[in-house]
Amino acid sequence: MFSVCVRSHVMIAHSFRGELFGPAQKLHGATYVVDVEFRRSELGPEGVVVDIGRASKALEALLSELNFKNLDDETAFAGKNTTTEYLSAVVFERMRARIASGELGSGSDRLESLKVTLHESHVAWAAFEGRIAENG
Amino acid sequence: MFSVCVRSHVMIAHSFRGELFGPAQKLHGATYVVDVEFRRSELGPEGVVVDIGRASKALEALLSELNFKNLDDETAFAGKNTTTEYLSAVVFERMRARIASGELGSGSDRLESLKVTLHESHVAWAAFEGRIAENG
Amino acid sequence: MFSVCVRSHVMIAHSFRGELFGPAQKLHGATYVVDVEFRRSELGPEGVVVDIGRASKALEALLSELNFKNLDDETAFAGKNTTTEYLSAVVFERMRARIASGELGSGSDRLESLKVTLHESHVAWAAFEGRIAENG
Amino acid sequence: MFSVCVRSHVMIAHSFRGELFGPAQKLHGATYVVDVEFRRSELGPEGVVVDIGRASKALEALLSELNFKNLDDETAFAGKNTTTEYLSAVVFERMRARIASGELGSGSDRLESLKVTLHESHVAWAAFEGRIAENG
Amino acid sequence: MFSVCVRSHVMIAHSFRGELFGPAQKLHGATYVVDVEFRRSELGPEGVVVDIGRASKALEALLSELNFKNLDDETAFAGKNTTTEYLSAVVFERMRARIASGELGSGSDRLESLKVTLHESHVAWAAFEGRIAENG
Amino acid sequence: MFSVCVRSHVMIAHSFRGELFGPAQKLHGATYVVDVEFRRSELGPEGVVVDIGRASKALEALLSELNFKNLDDETAFAGKNTTTEYLSAVVFERMRARIASGELGSGSDRLESLKVTLHESHVAWAAFEGRIAENG
Repeated sequence: MFSVCVRSHVMIAHSFRGELFGPAQKLHGATYVVDVEFRRSELGPEGVVVDIGRASKALEALLSELNFKNLDDETAFAGKNTTTEYLSAVVFERMRARIASGELGSGSDRLESLKVTLHESHVAWAAFEGRIAENG
Repeated sequence: MFSVCVRSHVMIAHSFRGELFGPAQKLHGATYVVDVEFRRSELGPEGVVVDIGRASKALEALLSELNFKNLDDETAFAGKNTTTEYLSAVVFERMRARIASGELGSGSDRLESLKVTLHESHVAWAAFEGRIAENG
Repeated sequence: MFSVCVRSHVMIAHSFRGELFGPAQKLHGATYVVDVEFRRSELGPEGVVVDIGRASKALEALLSELNFKNLDDETAFAGKNTTTEYLSAVVFERMRARIASGELGSGSDRLESLKVTLHESHVAWAAFEGRIAENG
Repeated sequence: MFSVCVRSHVMIAHSFRGELFGPAQKLHGATYVVDVEFRRSELGPEGVVVDIGRASKALEALLSELNFKNLDDETAFAGKNTTTEYLSAVVFERMRARIASGELGSGSDRLESLKVTLHESHVAWAAFEGRIAENG
Repeated sequence: MFSVCVRSHVMIAHSFRGELFGPAQKLHGATYVVDVEFRRSELGPEGVVVDIGRASKALEALLSELNFKNLDDETAFAGKNTTTEYLSAVVFERMRARIASGELGSGSDRLESLKVTLHESHVAWAAFEGRIAENG
Repeated sequence: MFSVCVRSHVMIAHSFRGELFGPAQKLHGATYVVDVEFRRSELGPEGVVVDIGRASKALEALLSELNFKNLDDETAFAGKNTTTEYLSAVVFERMRARIASGELGSGSDRLESLKVTLHESHVAWAAFEGRIAENG
């Protein structure tokens, strides 16, 4: 299995509901360093898993929808705790949709799975990985 | 699959038996930077894989059993080479026992697998990963 | 010159005023990975720059004043942009005050300077360094 | 599953063919920080996945075949784009051959799979992972 | 003293002349992860050392002059070994010129010094630091 | 000012004397990731601060004197706490002696200062920096 991973970051505000979260129930924020790993069994004719330029642009576009926002105000997340693991799945789904739309270019329909990791500090991170349905 | 990972560290002394180990047969030591990754297919109602506060405390408690010790003197490791890979499995088993005891709180019975990575330097690390039996 | 550095982190929300900041004028947040470096020309009798246990506790206590807060609501920062560089100086001043109070224990009056670095992402960080007045 | 990983690096020149690559169609170069992860279900009698000394030497020997070269001039890569993902598979195959030759010593016939990761910068990396045929 | 640092990277080919360089006398290449640290004694009215957006853009523009090139073909470096330390000074001089041109915007005339670090691998890096003449 | 830095590591056992050290009074150990930074105002004719090959070999030789040892048994450290900051100065002095002996080759008499950093974990490190007397 081949994989290619690109890294970017996003800075957001949010708060959590539930005693579990202690002081994180108050409005605070995070930098998430975001890694998106694209996986495929065979390389395309150019020798790549995906066009890394298009993949990076797609990640920037995707993250710009979240960047510099208070996630508590986003209707997309109403009633949800925007935990690091939850946001990992959000980035996964949005990248999957961009792949399905053809935004990542020729050969991206051969991508099989994705892993999205969000690093919230030097001592904690979360991830979501799954198959891309059409190739599942 | 969702995952959450927490990082801590431990500083121990030990020696190895076997020509394979060359100069590491002498008493020396290591800092292990320890990553424990908790995995689960679905998030709980709060949107988390595990209560990261409890997970971190469990890891600190677990590592305090090893920290600042000469592992050559520990009866738990009698007759064993406490290699980085062996210790990864020790941390795995001890964390699994803490999960089984309920120490990680509500929902931790839904955890499915763990991966423990011990970084012994900037150029070498080892890991053990496996399922948590009850969910296997 | 000897130095010892300890690392921790803090997660906050805030917004900036000024066209310079573009989209960061909106409420957002950050994880700051915080390094505090303590410097001294000669080691004390135990062979240390400072009691690293006390230094780490002081850093945790200091950061807990900021952690999980919306800095826009803090009177201490009224009228200020809480930029990464500004917050570096805030941590510097608050650590200097804790040193002056004796909180870091015996020998900490021999500390000469501090450098505080706040990492806001994998691609940007800021720092403030300066002398501790009494030893200036 | 146990794993052990060793890290080294290699510095090469190359160019790519295909519009996809934009300015990277010109002769340029890269440092690849190379991680090779060796995996095995059970530890050997010494408590190791593989003799890490021999594994490191094998990696150095393998990388010295590529180091300080213009890959465009290597007959082994004629007609190929030596992308990061392609080179990950090259390192995988060459390490697999070294394992098969017995170069990694006693017990290395029990290795089951390998993962090779090449980091091309702080924001991009690629990997190839697969089973070692004899144990597949 | 305040500082702000931004990170980017560049991928080049080159060769060295001199027995000192051993196999690096052959055409090879490198990824340089480039950190540029901007320093200033007092913050400007917005609370920043420099407009980090403009600083990042200037760094990207500067590095694009070198990126994906064979430095052996650049007339700017004729007769020079483009070592990591030499290139650190090149980036320093070119960033200083961009600052002098006003490209970094209001307040950048208050910058006092720069430190440029080029990381060539996980085990080696080089740097050049110096004052900006007008503020020297 | 130019600088070049090389990284290696060493794994030792030791214990500390003094209540200050709490549980670290017991025999334990550490991995130190060791950075040695060589500094010089002007580059030599080849465009380097120091022959990085010789510098790396000197660092390996120096660290092999400490590696896989129980520092409590070393007469060189009798009556000393081998703290991270103390060991930083030890590495500094031993590297300075190797430079003075000519071991780093032509031009190394132009080196002006050194900074030695020992990373003991992902959250703590210590350093010693100073001038090389002959160039002081």
